[in-house]
Amino acid sequence: MAARVFNERGYDGTSMEDLARALGVTKSAIYHHVSSKTELLRRSLDLAMDALFAVTREEASVTGPAVDRLDHVLRGSVRVLVELLPHVTLLLRVRGNTEVEKHALERRREFDHLVADLVREGIVAGDIRDDVDPAVAARLLFGMVNSIVEWYKPDRGLSAEEVADTLATIAFQGLRRPPHAS
Amino acid sequence: MAARVFNERGYDGTSMEDLARALGVTKSAIYHHVSSKTELLRRSLDLAMDALFAVTREEASVTGPAVDRLDHVLRGSVRVLVELLPHVTLLLRVRGNTEVEKHALERRREFDHLVADLVREGIVAGDIRDDVDPAVAARLLFGMVNSIVEWYKPDRGLSAEEVADTLATIAFQGLRRPPHAS
Repeated sequence: MAARVFNERGYDGTSMEDLARALGVTKSAIYHHVSSKTELLRRSLDLAMDALFAVTREEASVTGPAVDRLDHVLRGSVRVLVELLPHVTLLLRVRGNTEVEKHALERRREFDHLVADLVREGIVAGDIRDDVDPAVAARLLFGMVNSIVEWYKPDRGLSAEEVADTLATIAFQGLRRPPHAS
Repeated sequence: MAARVFNERGYDGTSMEDLARALGVTKSAIYHHVSSKTELLRRSLDLAMDALFAVTREEASVTGPAVDRLDHVLRGSVRVLVELLPHVTLLLRVRGNTEVEKHALERRREFDHLVADLVREGIVAGDIRDDVDPAVAARLLFGMVNSIVEWYKPDRGLSAEEVADTLATIAFQGLRRPPHAS
């Protein structure tokens, strides 16, 4: 698919010609479906961001304590990254050079704010520790989530569920064993 | 400096001509110091990796319980990222297309193994919870650390120390308040 080719060669460095060759189709076959390379990028970035925002609208993301909603959003985001790996990879490499990229960056910022707000709400509710800066914590949490595009290999038998479990354990319980646990 | 220019324009897309113009010097002034663009890249990547490995050789990284050594390596890495931001940014974008890049990727892998080993040791010692996969945990911890190059702005008054504290709090204690803390 196009996102995979963009990730391998870089979006800017990929012509529609390259794309057609890599996908084993003719250029006109691509133009039958999309009007331009920009349109392919836009679809890919929208797919990724729509899926991430869909997670934030799920029942468990909007009801219950903020800390549990945050847990749900983090796990759901891991699932989206694993499922839409090439699209999210493309999204995370976007630098905002064009209108389509700027729009994607704006949506990422909106998503970041939403996560930081959940951290803030959790602190106010007393479920999240108050010695962390909510914005920094949100950045770091999504640092963990986003790192998945760098190291996750779909064919190595590690499921999205297992990654989400380890991530949520670190994020909410931390790695250090409580002193009184045996 | 060169690393900053490479990050802005992409290493492949930057000629020595571009570099000289961006730095406000002549091409021959650059060639007076380095033999090639590759040499500039190598120096930058070495600077970043040398600093990261130096952290792992500090007293507090080699003595004491593994969980505390891991804490020290994480905090030290945050410091290195903030101090050498353009160099580490370049390092983290390397894809291994040339010998110099392949060498840097090998050193990154070696560093990752070292961190995963600390997690493993901490589990054996009983100080780190045993329900996490050490390799996945190591990846996620450095997902947090490495995300710094994406969002940290040196001029916004957030110190490396504050980032390191929030990161270590999440990594070792987790965000959720213990049930019996008031």
